[in-house]
This record gives sequence, C-alpha cells and structure tokens, in this order.
Amino acid sequence: MKDTAARKRIRAIRLELKSKGGYCLVVTKEANVTYVTGFTGGDSWAVLTPRTVCLVTDSRYTEQAKSECTGCRIIERKDSMAGQVARLLGVGKPTGTILLESSTSVAEFEQLRRNAGRRVRAVSNVVESIRTIKDAGEVAAIGSAVAIAAKAMERVRPEIHGGVTENELAGRLELEIRRLAGQVAFETIVAFGANGARPHHRPTGRRLRKNDTVLIDFGVRYKGCCCDLTRCFAVGRSSALFNRVYKAVEQAQQAAIAKVRAGAVISEVDAAARAVIRDYGLPVYGHGTGHGLGLEVHELPIISGKTKGVLRAGQVLTIEPGVYIPGKLGVRIEDDILVTQTGCRVLSGSAEPKIF
Amino acid sequence: MKDTAARKRIRAIRLELKSKGGYCLVVTKEANVTYVTGFTGGDSWAVLTPRTVCLVTDSRYTEQAKSECTGCRIIERKDSMAGQVARLLGVGKPTGTILLESSTSVAEFEQLRRNAGRRVRAVSNVVESIRTIKDAGEVAAIGSAVAIAAKAMERVRPEIHGGVTENELAGRLELEIRRLAGQVAFETIVAFGANGARPHHRPTGRRLRKNDTVLIDFGVRYKGCCCDLTRCFAVGRSSALFNRVYKAVEQAQQAAIAKVRAGAVISEVDAAARAVIRDYGLPVYGHGTGHGLGLEVHELPIISGKTKGVLRAGQVLTIEPGVYIPGKLGVRIEDDILVTQTGCRVLSGSAEPKIF
Repeated sequence: MKDTAARKRIRAIRLELKSKGGYCLVVTKEANVTYVTGFTGGDSWAVLTPRTVCLVTDSRYTEQAKSECTGCRIIERKDSMAGQVARLLGVGKPTGTILLESSTSVAEFEQLRRNAGRRVRAVSNVVESIRTIKDAGEVAAIGSAVAIAAKAMERVRPEIHGGVTENELAGRLELEIRRLAGQVAFETIVAFGANGARPHHRPTGRRLRKNDTVLIDFGVRYKGCCCDLTRCFAVGRSSALFNRVYKAVEQAQQAAIAKVRAGAVISEVDAAARAVIRDYGLPVYGHGTGHGLGLEVHELPIISGKTKGVLRAGQVLTIEPGVYIPGKLGVRIEDDILVTQTGCRVLSGSAEPKIF
Repeated sequence: MKDTAARKRIRAIRLELKSKGGYCLVVTKEANVTYVTGFTGGDSWAVLTPRTVCLVTDSRYTEQAKSECTGCRIIERKDSMAGQVARLLGVGKPTGTILLESSTSVAEFEQLRRNAGRRVRAVSNVVESIRTIKDAGEVAAIGSAVAIAAKAMERVRPEIHGGVTENELAGRLELEIRRLAGQVAFETIVAFGANGARPHHRPTGRRLRKNDTVLIDFGVRYKGCCCDLTRCFAVGRSSALFNRVYKAVEQAQQAAIAKVRAGAVISEVDAAARAVIRDYGLPVYGHGTGHGLGLEVHELPIISGKTKGVLRAGQVLTIEPGVYIPGKLGVRIEDDILVTQTGCRVLSGSAEPKIF
C-alpha cells in the first residue's frame, strides 16, 4: 500500500470517528483490517486511536505483519484478543467511548466490554463507507484481475465441449487463474442447462450435452482486489428461447449501465434493468442488480430497489441482471463498472465476448 | 440427512435449551443451520421452538430448501431476517427468552432485540457442543473425503517435479478433487522450501527446485463433511536437516495420537507432541496441536495446552504438530482421527505415504 493512500484513508476514518463521538475504533472485519493496515493475514484486529494505528496479531503472523504494515505499531498478543485490545486502550488515561464494528460477534463485543471496563458502542459501516470510493491503485488492481479473468476464460475455451462436467470446467478455470498469478476470489459457479436457473448453483458432475447452455460466474483476486464476472453462452445450436432471453438480459444490463454516473439514484439504476425484462414478458430476477466490489466480492453499495441514495464517482460496481426459467435455463450477464463524474467505464469491456 | 439422525440432534439441542432456560434458539451460523435443518445454501437462519424447526430463507433458496429440509417448516422471508424471525416468534403467546447464537453479529443481535420486543440472550456453543460428537453418517462422509484426498494426491504426484510452481500444483490438486466429485474444503496451501516455515502460507509463483521440500495442506468436503490433511516430503536429495525435522514431527504426532481415547485430558494430548519436539532441541510450534473436524474445517474441541476438559468418543480431530525453521523449511504432518472408547482410529491412515 502506498503511504499517501494509507494516510488518506486513516485521515478519512478519523474524521468519521470524531463525528460519531468516539475516541477510537476497533476494526475486526478482515477486509477492513487490510484496508487500514495493509495486513493480508487472518485472525487480527486493528485499533485506530487519534495518534496511532495498531495491528493486534499473534506469533503466526508477526513476520508477515512487519513486512506488510510499515506505518503501524504491531502488537503480538499473548492472551485473548479482547483482553489484549482492552489493555492496549487502557494505557495512558483515555476517556472517550470505544467504537467497535457492528459486524463483530456478540461474544467478542461482550468480552471487550468486560475487559475494557468502559463504554463500548457498536458502529456500522465506518470503514466500509470510505472503502466504497476506490483510489487509482485499487481501480488498477481490479483492472488487472479482469485481465486475468479474461485470459483464463480464453484458455479454457477449447475445453468447453460435449462431455465436460461442471466440476471439471470450474476446476480448469481456477487452475488457469492460478497459472496467471491470480487467486480464486470465490467458489466458481458453472451451471449447464437448467442448472443455470439456480442463481447460487454449485458445480456438479452434470455433463455438457450437444446443444446446451453454459453459465459461468467467477472471480479473480489480484493485489487484494476482486473482479466478479458472469458469462453465458450456448454450445451447438442455440434455442429460440435462449436467444430471446439472452437478448433481454443484455439489453437490461445496457439499460442499467446507461444510468450509471455520479449522482444517479441507485434504485433507478436497478429499475432500469428490471423494466426491460418485464417488457420482454420474462420473469424478473429475485436478486439485486449489482453490488460494490473491491477488497471484498460484495461491498457497498447494494444496487437494489430498496437502497436509498445515489452513486458516487470512484465506486466500482457489478451490474448483473438475469433471467431464470426453472427446468429450462438461466442467463445472467455481469460486468464490473467504474462510476465517473460524467458516466462510467466498463472495466470488463475487453473481457471475452459475451457470447461464444 | 437421515430422519432418525436429525430427530436425535434436535432432541439433544432442545434438552440443552431447557437447561439454559430458553424458550427457543435462533441459529445463525451457516454450519449450524445445516446441522439442524439439512439446508446447504446460504443467508438463512433456523429457529428451534419446543415444537417446530423452521428455516427462514429467501426466494433464491426456497426450491433448494424444499428438497433438502423435509422435516422443517420453510419460511420465505419478505423483509429483514430479524423482522421475519421476530414475527415468527410472536405468533401465539410465547413467554420465554429468545436465545441467539453468540457468533451472531452485534448488528443482527440488536435488530432482533428491537423487532422482538422481548428478552434476547446470546448463548455460546449450544449446537457446536452437540456437533462435536459425530454420528455414523458423518464419520463415513469424512472417510470418503479422505479417500478422495488420497486419490487426488496420487494423481498429481507425477506433476511434482522441478519447475512446477506452488500455484500450479495447488490448482492441479484442486482440479483432481473436483474430478473425483469432491469440493475443495479450504484454500489449499502449497509451500516449497523456506515458504513452508510460514504455517499460513498462500501459494505463489515460486518454482520447485532440484533438491527442495514440499508442504501441502489441503482439504476435501464430501456430503457436507470435511477432511484436513498435511503432507510433507523432499524431492531429489533430502537434507540431513529435513530428515531430522521430519522424524521429530512424525514421532511427535505419534506421541499425541497414542494419547487419544475417550476421557484423555486434551492438554495432555497437546503436551505429548510438544515434548517430543522439545526433546529433539527443535523450535516448538506456535499453533495448536489440532482441532475438531466435521461440517466445518475448524470445530470444537481445540487441541491446545489451554483447553480444559477431556476427549469424548465420537469426536473427529486433526493431530498436526509441526516444526518451522525460518529461512529454511517447515514440516507439518496432519491426520484425521476418530476418538473411540478404547483409543482411536486414524481415518487418514490409508491416505498416501507420508513421505515420497
């Protein structure tokens, strides 16, 4: 992490803290710990006080922390996390309230409260709301992740023929991602034919048939940041139904993307995609139209009809409408989009043709 | 899930609830939801009242829930999870306290409390403490996972030669697991040479050299249950250091396994392994000696010096001592062990020779 980027992040979080009346923030969510410290290991918390950023970790990670977290004080804990953090905050005579991320478990919240002997208050989305705006380094990393995804997809293309199983294809794709020095960001979804109608399908031993449809939803992590793409296509002869559904989903996605720009009302972006599918007389999908993307595969903002607020420049989103016809097929098209002042940039524009 | 097994689980949990003075239990942890309902999807909670088991899910999962959860009432939620669960528990005139798993986030705990308008209390390890004892079906599933792991390892053996990268080898192993109809239980660790000294190493582009060491820590999920194995070996000529370290770790593992039986003091199992490594004059590992294994890769009990209590028949554990010499190498040997009344059964005994 570049030092200036890190300093900017910390400054923004401290401003938020002040506005919430907190003395310090205890960061427990893994991606948030990475965001504020640069640390990419697990089982560690970060503590932001007005003057320092501390990483509280254990002996398994001390070496890694020293090389990754140059701007932080690194504390190797000897007892429980809550006990160590309470002691750390007890040093000197701090007076203010301890803020703790509300994604923390009740058990850990209670432990910290008991150990600290002072007021602990849970707060939501402090780091997440700052993380939603990506800096140049993050946008570049997501772009590289997309490039790896496209290349991996290109390499497995010759494998997509009758007889291959969903499981095999998922494994081959993940192997190519690794060969290209990416990490697999989440469990790859490969769904043939009617399996595509289940948005959260898990690959099985189902074999690809002669005239069949394929849905692949996959992601790559590179330099900590994720991409998230879905591609669908027919192999052999494509049915009239598939062609119609595909066209509808493609147009729905384009309609939503056309709305994306800083200041756009999020629920209107969502509505734009759904309207197209409704106009086609096809069933409207039950999931959101998209989500933020960055250190985590799912971040703020959620692009749905219920989300209040507007898009902001620097956010990176997926736009991923779908049509699911149980027993027949499913089509979803998902791309990664950077919100700009005047519109947007489709980061996955050059990734693989959308249809084979 | 067999019906009798399911009924037994539910009965045991209800007994626990009664002893804790709760009217019902809200189960939020994914593996626990699977355990009590059979549901393998995500984003769902289970609610156990004295008379019913409910699964609260959403439209994406309703079909799947209907086929997986035959003994449950399935509720497709229309608003927030907490709101739906509060309404569900408000039906009739229930009086007792709502118990909620303490692994739930503070945010969700507060939401449920607000919505329910009655007492909500967090409880720890209710389902986990019952899950720790495996039934015959679970032991068989772990055994099948081990068999897949062994077969996958055998198949990638020809690929382990000079020039292969850690990333490539991890990807190849995961592909074979999928080909054998298993799921990858966790991110595979492949560490060559000095990278093995970091217990949580993530595979890189590092290539295998002529005389080198290999550490592979990997897991397979089959029918919901996981195995977790670590294998180490030298390729080419093995150094005197590797041979000595390997022998020490192997003997440490055997010493711990020799202690495993129902009633054994957990901290003594841990101590047995560490004593061997200390006697060799080698650095004693900073992690635990093992952990429970089942629906999750890490379950109760934790095998460490700090754990109080004894082993119980029917638990499945890993035993995985290691020696880590920074800048040189790391060796860890991990097997999966079923605790029996009179001793134990090494479930991974037939899995691959421990050294090539």
